[in-house]
Amino acid sequence: MADTANLSDTRLVALDWGTSSLRAFRLGAQGQVLDQRSRPWGIMNLPPAPTGQADAEPGAAFERALQDACGDWLAALPSVPVLACGMVGSAQGWREAGYLDTPTSLDDLARGLTVVQRGSGTPLHIVPGLLQRAGLPNVMRGEETQVLGVLADTSVASQGPLLVGLPGTHSKWVVAHKDGTRRGIERFHTFMTGEVFAALRGHTILGKTMQAPAAPDDAAFAQGLQVARGSDAALGLLSHIFSTRTLGLTGALPAAAQADYLSGILIGHEIASLARLHPPTGAAPIPLVLCGEADLCRRYAIALQACGFAPPTIAAQATVMGLWQIAIAAGLAAPGAESTPFPRSQPA
Amino acid sequence: MADTANLSDTRLVALDWGTSSLRAFRLGAQGQVLDQRSRPWGIMNLPPAPTGQADAEPGAAFERALQDACGDWLAALPSVPVLACGMVGSAQGWREAGYLDTPTSLDDLARGLTVVQRGSGTPLHIVPGLLQRAGLPNVMRGEETQVLGVLADTSVASQGPLLVGLPGTHSKWVVAHKDGTRRGIERFHTFMTGEVFAALRGHTILGKTMQAPAAPDDAAFAQGLQVARGSDAALGLLSHIFSTRTLGLTGALPAAAQADYLSGILIGHEIASLARLHPPTGAAPIPLVLCGEADLCRRYAIALQACGFAPPTIAAQATVMGLWQIAIAAGLAAPGAESTPFPRSQPA
Repeated sequence: MADTANLSDTRLVALDWGTSSLRAFRLGAQGQVLDQRSRPWGIMNLPPAPTGQADAEPGAAFERALQDACGDWLAALPSVPVLACGMVGSAQGWREAGYLDTPTSLDDLARGLTVVQRGSGTPLHIVPGLLQRAGLPNVMRGEETQVLGVLADTSVASQGPLLVGLPGTHSKWVVAHKDGTRRGIERFHTFMTGEVFAALRGHTILGKTMQAPAAPDDAAFAQGLQVARGSDAALGLLSHIFSTRTLGLTGALPAAAQADYLSGILIGHEIASLARLHPPTGAAPIPLVLCGEADLCRRYAIALQACGFAPPTIAAQATVMGLWQIAIAAGLAAPGAESTPFPRSQPA
Repeated sequence: MADTANLSDTRLVALDWGTSSLRAFRLGAQGQVLDQRSRPWGIMNLPPAPTGQADAEPGAAFERALQDACGDWLAALPSVPVLACGMVGSAQGWREAGYLDTPTSLDDLARGLTVVQRGSGTPLHIVPGLLQRAGLPNVMRGEETQVLGVLADTSVASQGPLLVGLPGTHSKWVVAHKDGTRRGIERFHTFMTGEVFAALRGHTILGKTMQAPAAPDDAAFAQGLQVARGSDAALGLLSHIFSTRTLGLTGALPAAAQADYLSGILIGHEIASLARLHPPTGAAPIPLVLCGEADLCRRYAIALQACGFAPPTIAAQATVMGLWQIAIAAGLAAPGAESTPFPRSQPA
C-alpha cells in the first residue's frame, strides 16, 4: 500500500533502472523525493512469470517489475508521467532508447526520449544514452542523467567547464558545462576500474591471499596509489598488481591490507590517466566534482589530491535530480504547479 | 608399463610440476628426452586417496601423483635421481623449497636444492624459486629453470646480457648472462598479462559479446597493439580495454575479433612497459629471446617488433634442459657416462 499522505503532490514517477536494481521515486512539485522504493529487479534479474504462465510479450517481465516497485502509485496517479534512465534503455532493456552523439544538452536529451506504451497505463519515457564517436568510442547510459543532476546542484561551481567524476564499476569522467552556449555534456572517458578490481579479486591469484579488512585501510590504499605514480611507474599496471601478491609473500603487506592496496593501484592508474588528459597544474585547471557512493568518493578524493589535483567538490547523488530536470525540459512535469485535487478514490 | 627399450640409458627423472599439471621426463646421458608423460596432477589437483582411506601424512597425495606419472620408472631405476621444479616447491607444494635471492647462478640453484625423502624410494630434489627484493618484490618458481635451459641453448647468442621473455599466465622478462662472471639470472619483471586476459574475458562484460575466432585474428591483435601505444596511449589500460565493448557496439569490431583485440591491448601494454625499462633503440639494445607456447611467442614477436624491438630469437621449450643443467651442476647426473648394465629384473 502506498503512503498516500502526499500522493496528490506527486509530479513525476522517476525510475533509476540499471543492470542490477530498480529504484523508483515519487517526486513533488520542486523535484523533491516524496517516497522511494528499491527492488532487485535489474534488467538482468526481472521477476519471473507466475507459475504455469508464459509472458505474452517481451515487455511483460519489465511491466511486472514496475508494478511490484510502484504499481500502487501508478494506479492512484494515472496521469502522472513516468521517466526512466539507465540500462532499461539498452538493447537488453525494455526498449532500446538509442544513443545521442556528444556533445549534447539537457534539451537534446529531453527531445530524445523513447516512449513505451503500456496498455491502459501511462506510457514510460526512457532517457537516451550517449555515444562519443571521436577516437576510441565511448558510451554511457544512466550517467548522462546523473551529470545533468550534478549540473543542477546549486553547490557546484558554474563558470567554465567542469570535470565530473562518477566512480564505480565503469568510472566515467565527464567534461560538462553548467551554463552558457555549451551547457550540457561535452565529452567523456570511461575506466573499467571497479569491474577490473572485482575480476582481479574474485578470479585471479591476487584474491587467494586477501582477507576482508575490518575497516578501509587508507595506508595500504595510499601505498597502492604511490606504486601507480612513483618511481616504479614505468612498470605499468600489469606488473604493479603482481606486487599485491609478492608483498604478501615477503610479509610486507598483511592479508587484510591487500584489497585496499590493489584498489589504490587501480584507482591510482585511473587518476594518473586523468592527470595526463587534464593536467592538474597550469593556469586554469578544470574544477572537479565527484558524484557517487560515499566511500568511493572519499577514496577518489584522496587519489586526486595525491596526483596534484585540487580537492574536488563532492556532489549529492544526482540521478533523481537529473530525471527531474529532463522531465521539466521535456514538458512531462512542471515545477511548482499547484497540487492536483486529492483523488477521491484510493486503492486499498 | 614403461617403454623399457632404453630404460638403462636413463640418467635423470625430471619433473616439471606446476599448479595445473605434472610432466615427467626420462632423460638420457646427453640430457635428451627418452620418454615423457603428462598428468593433470598439478599441486592444486592431486589424485584423491583410495575410497575409505585417509592419507597418513601430507606428502601422500604428491607421492600418489608421482607414482601415477612414473612409478614404473622409479621402480625399475631405483638409483636414478629425481629432480623437480615449479610450484611443487611452493608453500602449497610437497615441500617448500624457499627462495634464493637474485642475482643467482646455475651453481647457486644447484647448491640450493631441497631434498624430500620418500621412504625406500630415491629422494625427490626440488629446485628453489627466486626472490628479487629490490623495488617492488618479484618471485618466480619454475621459470628460473626454464631460463637456465635457454642459456644452455646453443642457438642463443652468448655475448653480454640477454633479455629472456617467458610469456604466459604471469609473463616473466629476465635479464640473464650466458657466460662470464655474471653468468646466470640477474633480475626480472613479472606481468600478469595472461591471467588478466582470462579474468577479463571470463568475468567482465567484455567477455559477454566475444565469440571464439576460427583462427587467430592478427589484424585485430595489431589494432589492439596500436591502441596501447598510439595516439590514445595517455588513456591507459583501464580505459583502453573498454573499447573492446564500444567498438563492438558501434559495429567496428566483430564479436570474433574482440578476444584478439583485447589480447593486443594487454600484450601491447606489457611490451610498452618493457620498452620503457629496456629501450629498444640506442647504441646496444639488449638481445631478446622468447621461450614459451608457440602461438604466444608468435604474438609476442609481433608485439615486440611493433614497439621497435629487433626480431627476437625463439628458443625451444627449455624446462627439461634447465633441469638437466641443474642436475649436472648438483652432481646428481653426469653427462655422457656409460650406460649402467641393463637391469636383469624388469617389472611387468
